[in-house]
Amino acid sequence: MEYRKLKDQEDDVDAMREDVESRAEKAHSSAGINPLSTAGGGLGDHSRWKRKSIVTLALTFLTSSQAILIVWSKRAGKYEYSVTTANFLVETLKCFLSLAALTRIWRREGVTDDNRLRTTFEEVKVYPIPAALYLVKNLLQYYIFAYVDAPGYQILKNLNIISTGVLYRIILKRELSEIQWAAFILLCAGCTTAQLNSNSDQVLETPFQGWIMAIVMALLSGFAGVYTEAIIKKRPSRNINVQNFWLYIFGMIFNIIAILVQDFSAVLNKGFFHGYSLITILMIFNHALSGIAVSMVMKYADNIVKVYSTSVAMLLTAVVSVFLFGFHLSLAFFLGAVVVSVSVYLHSAGKLRR
Amino acid sequence: MEYRKLKDQEDDVDAMREDVESRAEKAHSSAGINPLSTAGGGLGDHSRWKRKSIVTLALTFLTSSQAILIVWSKRAGKYEYSVTTANFLVETLKCFLSLAALTRIWRREGVTDDNRLRTTFEEVKVYPIPAALYLVKNLLQYYIFAYVDAPGYQILKNLNIISTGVLYRIILKRELSEIQWAAFILLCAGCTTAQLNSNSDQVLETPFQGWIMAIVMALLSGFAGVYTEAIIKKRPSRNINVQNFWLYIFGMIFNIIAILVQDFSAVLNKGFFHGYSLITILMIFNHALSGIAVSMVMKYADNIVKVYSTSVAMLLTAVVSVFLFGFHLSLAFFLGAVVVSVSVYLHSAGKLRR
Repeated sequence: MEYRKLKDQEDDVDAMREDVESRAEKAHSSAGINPLSTAGGGLGDHSRWKRKSIVTLALTFLTSSQAILIVWSKRAGKYEYSVTTANFLVETLKCFLSLAALTRIWRREGVTDDNRLRTTFEEVKVYPIPAALYLVKNLLQYYIFAYVDAPGYQILKNLNIISTGVLYRIILKRELSEIQWAAFILLCAGCTTAQLNSNSDQVLETPFQGWIMAIVMALLSGFAGVYTEAIIKKRPSRNINVQNFWLYIFGMIFNIIAILVQDFSAVLNKGFFHGYSLITILMIFNHALSGIAVSMVMKYADNIVKVYSTSVAMLLTAVVSVFLFGFHLSLAFFLGAVVVSVSVYLHSAGKLRR
Repeated sequence: MEYRKLKDQEDDVDAMREDVESRAEKAHSSAGINPLSTAGGGLGDHSRWKRKSIVTLALTFLTSSQAILIVWSKRAGKYEYSVTTANFLVETLKCFLSLAALTRIWRREGVTDDNRLRTTFEEVKVYPIPAALYLVKNLLQYYIFAYVDAPGYQILKNLNIISTGVLYRIILKRELSEIQWAAFILLCAGCTTAQLNSNSDQVLETPFQGWIMAIVMALLSGFAGVYTEAIIKKRPSRNINVQNFWLYIFGMIFNIIAILVQDFSAVLNKGFFHGYSLITILMIFNHALSGIAVSMVMKYADNIVKVYSTSVAMLLTAVVSVFLFGFHLSLAFFLGAVVVSVSVYLHSAGKLRR
C-alpha cells in the first residue's frame, strides 16, 4: 500500500493549490507561449484547438510536477515554512507575471480597450466571489476531519468531479452528451478506484454530518471553479492577463488577511522567509505557473477539461513516483487508470455533433 | 472484507457451472416459456427483442440464484456429495427437459426437418469440441494453483471477458462499435474492481507462467463459448431443443468418463447419491435450468449478452447476500458496480447504427 503515501501528499498539493486558487483564479503568459498572450480574437479552428491543447498539457504537466515537488520536499524533511506566506508569494508572482505579459503586449499592440489595465467596479465586483467560496470551503475543511480521516477525505474529494459536472451544466448551461455524462461518472469512479487502499472501506462508515459536509464542500469547490470560468468568459475579448491581474490582486489581499489571522506571530518572531529552501522556491514558481495554467484552461477550454487534466495528472504523478521514489502501484491503481483512460476516450468520442 | 467470502464461493459456482457447460452447451424450454420452444422463424422485431430479453433475464436470475444456493449449501455444511455425479445428473436432467420440450412441439406441430431428433454425422461432428476445450481448461485449472491462489485466480478469470470479446470479433466476425469495445474493457475493469480485497495486490506478483496459463485458460473458455454459439447459430432454423439434446448427450458421456476417472471408488463404496440433500437437488435443478438459459442466450442473443448477464448476476448476488447472509459490501464493490452499470448503458448506447 505504498501508493497511499503519494495520495496523502497529493492531498497537501491539492490543499495548497486550492488555497492558491482560492484567492482568485489566475492567468498570464509572456515569454515561451506567445500565442497565449494574444487577445484570442480571429483565430482559426486549428489554432484554437492547438492553444487549448497546449494549455491543457501545461496544466497536466504542472499539476503532476507539483505533486512530485511536494513528495520531494517532504522526503527532504523541509516543510517548516509558513504556507500562508508561500501562498502570498505565489499570488504576487502571478500578478507580476501577468503584468510582464501585459507590458509585452502593450509594446507590441499598443493599449486597447481589451488590454488596458484600468477597470470598472462593474467588471471587478464579482472577482472576489470565487475566493470567498474557497475561503468557506477551506474553513469547513478543518471541521470535516472530526468525521473523516485524511485518506477518507481524499476519497470523498472525488465528489468534486461530479459537482463540477453538474454545476457546469446548470450555471454555464453548457450541454454534455449522454456518453460524456457516462464518461464523467467513470472519471469519478476511476479516480476513486485508483486511490483505494486497505483502509478505504472506513469511508463507508462516515457519519451523516460528514457526508453532508463533503457534499457541501464539493459544491463550494465546484461552484468556485465554474464561477471563475463564467467571470473569465463573460468578456471573451478582454485580455486574460488583465482578468488575471485583478483576480490575483484579490488573491494577494486574501492572503495578507490569512497571514495576519493565522501566522502573524510566527512571521514576526521567525521572519517571513523562515524555513524557505530551494525546493520551496521551486514550489512557489510551480504553483504560480500552474495557477496561470488553470486560468488559461478556464479561458480557452473549460472546467471539464480542467477536471480531466488534473485527474490524468494524478495518475501521471503516481507512475512517475514509481521511477523517482520506488513507489509500488496497486492493482486498484491499474484498474482506476484503465477506467480513467476509457473515460478520457469516451469524453472525446461522445462529443455532441450538431 | 466480508465480501471475499462470497467471491470464493462464487469461484465454486463458476467452477461447477463451467464443469456443467464443459460437457456440452444446453437448452430446452417447455412449460412456462412457450415462445422459446418454437423454431423462431418468422418472428417480428418486437417478439425477437422480447424473447432475447426473457432469456437474458432468466440467465441473470438463474446465475445469481446459483451462487446464492452454493453459499447457502456451504453455510449448512452440506457439500460432501460428488461433483461429478451431480454434473452427470445436471446433463441428464437437461437432456430430459429438451426431450420433454420436443415432445410438446411434435404433438403441436408434427415432426419436421427442423425439429426431428434424427441427425447426421455432418451436423453433430463438431458438437464435442466445446466440451473438449472445457476439459482442457479444467485440467489446466489444477496446475494454475501452483502459481496463483484461489482469490487471485478469481481476479484473473476476468480476462475471460476480454478473450470472449476478442474471439467473438475474430471467429464470429461480428462487429462491436468503438463505444462497445470501451464498454467491454470497462466491464472487465468493473468486475475486477468489485472483487478487490486487501490481498488482491498479490495477483500482480503472479509469475510469468501463471499469467500465460491464465491467458490460455481465458482463451480456451472464450473459444468454447464462441464455438458453441457458432454451432447453434449455424443452423438457425434447427430447433434449439434438438441442438441441445445432442450437446447434452455428449455432456452425459463426458461426465460418465469423469465419474470413472475421478470418483469411481467413492461411488462404488458410498453410493451414487451419497451426501445428497434438498439443497443439492435444488442446485442440480438450478444448474440444469441455467445451462439451458445459456444455450438460449447463445441461440437468440450472443456471447456478449451472456458475459453481461453473468457479470450483472455477480453484482446481484452480492447485493442479495447482504440481506440473506449479512455480508458487507466494500467501497471497491460500489465503485465496480458503478463501472459495470455504466458499461451496460454504453453497450446499448453504442450500438452500431447502419
